[in-house]
Amino acid sequence: MTRVPDEGMVLIPGGTLITATPDEGRALAITLARHTVHNIQPDLETLHAGRARYAGDPTGLIAAAQVVALEFATIAAANGYWR
Amino acid sequence: MTRVPDEGMVLIPGGTLITATPDEGRALAITLARHTVHNIQPDLETLHAGRARYAGDPTGLIAAAQVVALEFATIAAANGYWR
Amino acid sequence: MTRVPDEGMVLIPGGTLITATPDEGRALAITLARHTVHNIQPDLETLHAGRARYAGDPTGLIAAAQVVALEFATIAAANGYWR
Amino acid sequence: MTRVPDEGMVLIPGGTLITATPDEGRALAITLARHTVHNIQPDLETLHAGRARYAGDPTGLIAAAQVVALEFATIAAANGYWR
Amino acid sequence: MTRVPDEGMVLIPGGTLITATPDEGRALAITLARHTVHNIQPDLETLHAGRARYAGDPTGLIAAAQVVALEFATIAAANGYWR
Amino acid sequence: MTRVPDEGMVLIPGGTLITATPDEGRALAITLARHTVHNIQPDLETLHAGRARYAGDPTGLIAAAQVVALEFATIAAANGYWR
Repeated sequence: MTRVPDEGMVLIPGGTLITATPDEGRALAITLARHTVHNIQPDLETLHAGRARYAGDPTGLIAAAQVVALEFATIAAANGYWR
Repeated sequence: MTRVPDEGMVLIPGGTLITATPDEGRALAITLARHTVHNIQPDLETLHAGRARYAGDPTGLIAAAQVVALEFATIAAANGYWR
Repeated sequence: MTRVPDEGMVLIPGGTLITATPDEGRALAITLARHTVHNIQPDLETLHAGRARYAGDPTGLIAAAQVVALEFATIAAANGYWR
Repeated sequence: MTRVPDEGMVLIPGGTLITATPDEGRALAITLARHTVHNIQPDLETLHAGRARYAGDPTGLIAAAQVVALEFATIAAANGYWR
Repeated sequence: MTRVPDEGMVLIPGGTLITATPDEGRALAITLARHTVHNIQPDLETLHAGRARYAGDPTGLIAAAQVVALEFATIAAANGYWR
Repeated sequence: MTRVPDEGMVLIPGGTLITATPDEGRALAITLARHTVHNIQPDLETLHAGRARYAGDPTGLIAAAQVVALEFATIAAANGYWR
């Protein structure tokens, strides 16, 4: 088994939900979702095989987008919506 | 591979969640959802093939509408619901 | 292709989330969900064929009800819950 | 077609999200979810046939419970959590 | 038909969302989800047969965990997060 | 039947939603989701067999990530987003 590198396992990279811009907040949302998956399944080969399937499948892409939307809601609230 | 054009990859187009009207906020919600998908799957041919499938499938359309509803909830809160 | 009429494409009919009553807010939630779908899939024949399938399928009806619940949560918050 | 009786079509029975008790709020959540479904699919025979399928299927029951949870979140917030 | 006992049908056992501890709040979240299901499907044999299926199926368990997470979000907010 | 050890059944380990850091909050979110599953299905063999299936399946991993996102939203709110 080839394991996800350590930096891919960090649950909250940077250790904070606060970001300088909405764009960085959005990138963090995507990262949080990915790193959760890495922590549940740390085997790189399994992840790559799975990615080939869901990323070519509209249902899988929409489901992934839903997780990003949920993570972003939390990050946006944490940042006072960058108002 | 033909890649999604750069402007389709921007996570938060305009760099802000603040919009002048609810209608613009709703359009932003749809865009955010689409650009998330582009970032996960940047290959245009795969996206077009997937679109043909989910957009003709009521389950896929409802799932996409759910992501838009979630993104819009965040954008609406950011804008104080345009009250 | 017969396209959804223009009024079915308006993202936020009336241009506001504020409604006089909870009942009108609920009706708006249903409309928002429908118009999102119209914007993703504006072909009326495809929509009608899809409707015949999901509206006879309990899973499809429950999924649609979930989107309405999410849209209504935002509209209710926007209206201070009509208290 | 036998249509759902008129009282089953009312989007917000009682016209308010405010209830005297959490139990009544929960009952309202179930009713809101049901009446949404009635509005999407008002044919009683189709509804009864669908009910026989989803109510015997754990996935369908869990999906229905999720919609109730979402509706209840809104109603509970509207009532200040009955504190 | 053997019906779920009356206490399994109470929508909000105890009649309040307020609990002494987060642990009790979590237990209430699980109970709310279960009692919703009982109200939709009060036949014990059907429930037991369904449980045997979803509780051995990871997709069913994850879907159930999602409902619990949603119920808990409401209960936690009601209790000011037990801060 | 080999049962999940007692510590895996505790609904809120530590008895609080308050954590020192976002990273600990995220770890708690994962634990809450897991312990919910343990309470619904306490048989270790069934859980291990299920894990082998969902953790190799992108749809299962995304669904699990969604539950973690929902739990984290509650924990983050409880901690004032660690601002």
